[in-house]
Amino acid sequence: HSSKLPNLGTSIFTTMTGLANRYKAINLSQGFPEFDAPVLLKQRLAKYCEQGFNQYAPSCGLAPLQAQIASLTGRIYGTDINPLDTVTVTSGATEALFVAIQTITHPGDEIIIFDPAYDSYEPAIELAGGRAVHIAMLAPDYAINWPLVEAAITEKTRGIIINTPHNPSAKTLKQADFDKLKELVLKHDLLLISDEVYEHITFEGTPHISVLSDAELFARAFVIASFGKTFHCTGWKMGYCIAPEKLTQEFRKIHQYVTFSSFTPAQLALTDMLAEEPEHITALAPFYQHKRDVLVNALQASRFTILPSEGTYFLLLDYSAISQIDDMAFCEYLVKEIGVAAIPLSVFYQTPPGDKVIRLCFAKEDVTLQQAAERLSPL
Amino acid sequence: HSSKLPNLGTSIFTTMTGLANRYKAINLSQGFPEFDAPVLLKQRLAKYCEQGFNQYAPSCGLAPLQAQIASLTGRIYGTDINPLDTVTVTSGATEALFVAIQTITHPGDEIIIFDPAYDSYEPAIELAGGRAVHIAMLAPDYAINWPLVEAAITEKTRGIIINTPHNPSAKTLKQADFDKLKELVLKHDLLLISDEVYEHITFEGTPHISVLSDAELFARAFVIASFGKTFHCTGWKMGYCIAPEKLTQEFRKIHQYVTFSSFTPAQLALTDMLAEEPEHITALAPFYQHKRDVLVNALQASRFTILPSEGTYFLLLDYSAISQIDDMAFCEYLVKEIGVAAIPLSVFYQTPPGDKVIRLCFAKEDVTLQQAAERLSPL
Ligand SMILES: CSCCC(=O)C(=O)O
Ligand SMILES: CSCCC(=O)C(=O)O
Repeated sequence: HSSKLPNLGTSIFTTMTGLANRYKAINLSQGFPEFDAPVLLKQRLAKYCEQGFNQYAPSCGLAPLQAQIASLTGRIYGTDINPLDTVTVTSGATEALFVAIQTITHPGDEIIIFDPAYDSYEPAIELAGGRAVHIAMLAPDYAINWPLVEAAITEKTRGIIINTPHNPSAKTLKQADFDKLKELVLKHDLLLISDEVYEHITFEGTPHISVLSDAELFARAFVIASFGKTFHCTGWKMGYCIAPEKLTQEFRKIHQYVTFSSFTPAQLALTDMLAEEPEHITALAPFYQHKRDVLVNALQASRFTILPSEGTYFLLLDYSAISQIDDMAFCEYLVKEIGVAAIPLSVFYQTPPGDKVIRLCFAKEDVTLQQAAERLSPL
Repeated sequence: HSSKLPNLGTSIFTTMTGLANRYKAINLSQGFPEFDAPVLLKQRLAKYCEQGFNQYAPSCGLAPLQAQIASLTGRIYGTDINPLDTVTVTSGATEALFVAIQTITHPGDEIIIFDPAYDSYEPAIELAGGRAVHIAMLAPDYAINWPLVEAAITEKTRGIIINTPHNPSAKTLKQADFDKLKELVLKHDLLLISDEVYEHITFEGTPHISVLSDAELFARAFVIASFGKTFHCTGWKMGYCIAPEKLTQEFRKIHQYVTFSSFTPAQLALTDMLAEEPEHITALAPFYQHKRDVLVNALQASRFTILPSEGTYFLLLDYSAISQIDDMAFCEYLVKEIGVAAIPLSVFYQTPPGDKVIRLCFAKEDVTLQQAAERLSPL
């Protein structure tokens, strides 16, 4: 009996966190915060659970949570969305991505993705019988080469997956990118999956441009968001997908057979959080900008070249002044000998460009970031 | 852009619960308990959340929970399983079923399922590019016609999905069924998905025969279980899959891209629950047998024919002495005019046999069951 994903093993996040634990290294590999979820959010989860809200939520999510998501979206992106027909709560952004990909991909379809690409896109496309067409974005600016994208579009192209702010490059898409994207998407009648899980984390006033703020793009898009990233609760596995009504109907048909619904007490707690402490969201960007700066400053004296981070909680380091070994080997060396776990960038490429670049997660206490930098600086 | 599941709409559970709420009917349709999860389980969830265990669990589940599941399985089924390599925690049994089906089904493969079949099996098979081959089980005994199964096996048959105790028929597979199943599975080199989510709910000493207790069957099986059913917390969406190491590796490859991991505080709370109050599990069968008997007794004077329920929290009623309209129309009449929501059995068949049968859920307070029966009895 043969494998459905013969070329894949364990995700890099599982592998590196495993190594970090085994070697007691500071874990800056897998992206998750070292700090806790807001007190209100935790208290409400406890309350709703203890009060007995422990049975199935509706498959599309609880109506009050859908309403809060719609009103948040309206406030931030100036978009008027119908909560009941366009918002679907999911078991993490990972599930939302998986379902959106299943929704648009028929056997033989091609889906364009941008390397370095988040590791779940391609397996999800393959499981749907489609083929991922990779467009490489390259260091140091990781910009999208739009003529290359247009050249890659064929009769079989069904959709494009974008991700902004971008993991792992920490870059954001600019208005000029959206203009080109819109032109292509309309011209070739494509669908769009927009992974915006780091939407609230951009630095120095870099705007996050959401597909939600462009009616023509949104008309053919699935916009995917993550409560885990926004509220420091990655272990809750709560996210959502916003898509126009017709696309949402198809999305929900699949979602109902993938997980059916998501953790009920968390849906109630997140509803309260969005309603009562929305300022948590606006505080997120300065909070993470400080983290980024702590890490950047602490690495200033090192021989790493620090690539600019415009958003997300990741920072790329070029180590070519330190070593010429490949990035997987370099990360193994770092975790075993130096006591810092990082992610090699090459794993996110179909055809790795041979760059000597690693990714660090700075969603950590300042002291953890300083300690990691102290270990890395003598290299 | 065409639909991935063109013949499917909203799941019957969503539809009927929606109607029940709209018409303020007693909801005996979708299967979920009216009573709450155990106090210990809720307290521990609150505790672990408030103590800050809110980041990603490992994709395969937390090791202590895997260990508790393995030890429970060992105690109950006399099977010695390696927790780390064979147990995977999932976001509900629905996710486990979806991933197991994706794991075994290649495009063109045929998977044998038994009608009346749980509604998620076929869409999951279709999304994997496979084809569900339906074998009908018929009222009143819903037995498997094994010669029919053997005749349905072709070169393309890759697996069989069994479900015992069976939803919606409330029947259990007997040892003779397992003997036939084993013969076929070995002879034709098939894989097995065993949906055992009601494993702890069988009545009058009817044994639950698990695939886990047969080493040869287990060697080619995914056994799927549900914490929601066992601990009255369907809204937590927690389940698991036990499969031999090689199959588990393939299962996990897919699971990591479907949801990645499941709610961390719930994993810790369930670990404690299994360790500290395992007696909850053995109390479950008598608890639900009482519920069944309350409903059966209260319906005794009605014109419904009550079909025997050997397990699960469902009861089938034949209404042919009352009406000749089809079961969907009858359920609409019940929810709108009589104030009781039920599930029409025909929705679980590819080719409905035309039986006049509906399914009631008796995971409700005694008074609720009595009230429902009072409304149904004058018919
Ligand atoms: C689902 S584990 C991966 C977390 C993450 O988004 C990352 O590290 O890039
Ligand atoms: C996931 S909602 C369906 C619940 C259930 O298992 C049933 O009613 O059969």
